[in-house]
Amino acid sequence: MKELIEELEVDALLLLSRQNKYYCASLYSGSGYVLVTKDKIVVMVDGRYYQQMKEANKHNEVVLLDANHSLPFYLQKWKKENNIKKIVFEKSTISYSEYEMLMSIQDITWVAADVDKIRQIKTKDEIATIQKAGDIASQAYQHILQFIKVGMSEKEVENELLYQMRKLGADKESFDTVIVSGERGALPHGKASDKIIEATDFVTIDFGARYKEYCSDITRTFAMTNNYNQELKRIYDIVLTAQQKAINAIQPGMKCSQIDKVARDYIEKNGYGSYFTHNLGHSIGIDCHENPRLSPQDDTVLQVGMIVTVEPGVYVEGLGGVRIEDDVLVSKNGAVVLTSAPKEFHVIGDDENGS
Amino acid sequence: MKELIEELEVDALLLLSRQNKYYCASLYSGSGYVLVTKDKIVVMVDGRYYQQMKEANKHNEVVLLDANHSLPFYLQKWKKENNIKKIVFEKSTISYSEYEMLMSIQDITWVAADVDKIRQIKTKDEIATIQKAGDIASQAYQHILQFIKVGMSEKEVENELLYQMRKLGADKESFDTVIVSGERGALPHGKASDKIIEATDFVTIDFGARYKEYCSDITRTFAMTNNYNQELKRIYDIVLTAQQKAINAIQPGMKCSQIDKVARDYIEKNGYGSYFTHNLGHSIGIDCHENPRLSPQDDTVLQVGMIVTVEPGVYVEGLGGVRIEDDVLVSKNGAVVLTSAPKEFHVIGDDENGS
Repeated sequence: MKELIEELEVDALLLLSRQNKYYCASLYSGSGYVLVTKDKIVVMVDGRYYQQMKEANKHNEVVLLDANHSLPFYLQKWKKENNIKKIVFEKSTISYSEYEMLMSIQDITWVAADVDKIRQIKTKDEIATIQKAGDIASQAYQHILQFIKVGMSEKEVENELLYQMRKLGADKESFDTVIVSGERGALPHGKASDKIIEATDFVTIDFGARYKEYCSDITRTFAMTNNYNQELKRIYDIVLTAQQKAINAIQPGMKCSQIDKVARDYIEKNGYGSYFTHNLGHSIGIDCHENPRLSPQDDTVLQVGMIVTVEPGVYVEGLGGVRIEDDVLVSKNGAVVLTSAPKEFHVIGDDENGS
Repeated sequence: MKELIEELEVDALLLLSRQNKYYCASLYSGSGYVLVTKDKIVVMVDGRYYQQMKEANKHNEVVLLDANHSLPFYLQKWKKENNIKKIVFEKSTISYSEYEMLMSIQDITWVAADVDKIRQIKTKDEIATIQKAGDIASQAYQHILQFIKVGMSEKEVENELLYQMRKLGADKESFDTVIVSGERGALPHGKASDKIIEATDFVTIDFGARYKEYCSDITRTFAMTNNYNQELKRIYDIVLTAQQKAINAIQPGMKCSQIDKVARDYIEKNGYGSYFTHNLGHSIGIDCHENPRLSPQDDTVLQVGMIVTVEPGVYVEGLGGVRIEDDVLVSKNGAVVLTSAPKEFHVIGDDENGS
């Protein structure tokens, strides 16, 4: 954060977004502010959060917001005492009303910027937490492979999945669960619906666990019975190979766009280039979708400690689709996959028949 | 909406928030725009949403956003063709980055305003949907009264509650479920934790179902066994009476602040005034917390078709707390309670002992 303050040539960052307040000072709330200067972090909260924040911030300053001690009061005090007068606000998350409120504070020079990149390189603790979120998702997936049957609705499967994730320790889901079966498989972001899952269907499930405010994000596709469409099986093999090639290509020093290209080129070479309609992946942490992105346009260089999703997909209207996604840590030795759920081609019916 | 356009003396409203885009044009997404003029509604979406929006907007215009047809392109076109030049943006929900983008569009005069009040008076369909969301919550609560046992953790109870709500048709929860037992009952917004529920505990559960993008929000408090604290029972009776008096006072023409006062005065008269630390209630709809609020500061006049929560609470640190909440429709004959879960004082242990 010190680097960012110096790079932006300001005196401090004022954080209003949950994700950055939580990252810097364990404050996961829409209310309260966190001010980050070169040498300290100050948490400003009202009476509801004060005690809890004092306990969570042994090394930081915590001050109380009340009728006589508002944000403008503290900012003017610190301007006088510490010469803090040029302050960054978070341009993409702050609302216009909050911006108006900041602008009404006198004698402060405000700088609009995005500060999310302070969270790009994950700490050991963050990696362990995301690993746990990945473990929960992987275990819940194994349960669903046993649970899912022809004749169930997508929503029934979703409910069981969320129930199992919470049982396994998740606080909640990372995002609205995607469950698409049959032709709905061509919808990259179709939510679970009342559609009944049929014997000829491929099913794609894209979901994640939120654990201690950190996310996992995983996608698996499988066939319900051996009575599946052969083109979809061919697509499955292409997508899986593309994903594996991209994961193998991950190294610190590589550009995000280069990783995207590895998967995209392979899918194109196999004739489905125009059916892979989104980026290869995104970073993940407190937010489910963070920068950098594994996209053709993002030339950010991968660094040790980044965690990205790798999720190629092919979607054919009227037929269905396949997507396979893992969360991957960039280590000095290359990719470490944090989501262990199996991804070799799987047919549910086989379990029942023992074939 | 026409009234608001006239009141603000503008040519149109540009909607970016999910809630208002959904309300005006069934578009529940962070992407896309809806322009509302005096005589029409125009939906602007990219290829992902175009077909679906065409089907959902038989009486509205739907236009496609692509590389050559961006928001600025359309706004300038309509300025020329329809003389639309003064447009409202939603000040509380738009981000600063979005604001910057709007400001970069030439020759449009932008007006910052809040337009959420277009959703204050609910239509028949909206009322029926919220009633269904209330029914789901009420039925799930009945199930939890049978399910909950001494020795379970708050999180176990939460998981069962969410599972049942989805089984009953909910799309998801309206907000993070509050389950607080024993001394944690003094936390008005404590999330369900790993705390084990004990025989002497009062338990407060504050939760809701989201159904077709509309919310319910209900709170109930009960005792686990007859071995409960007598002061908490006294508080229960006070809170329940306060709630009932406030509900009975609801009539079109009354001010929100007057309804708040009915409950607050009764709680004060009974010695717990300083322990009722929040507003009496809030409006509810697509957002779980809408205006007007039943608060001492809100003098909005209640009108037929508004739906508000009525939720007095008393919180005593070191002892626990009680909150009771229903969703209430303002009808021409007064209050209609949409959340039917029982609220006479209930002891779980009684079920088992048959006492």
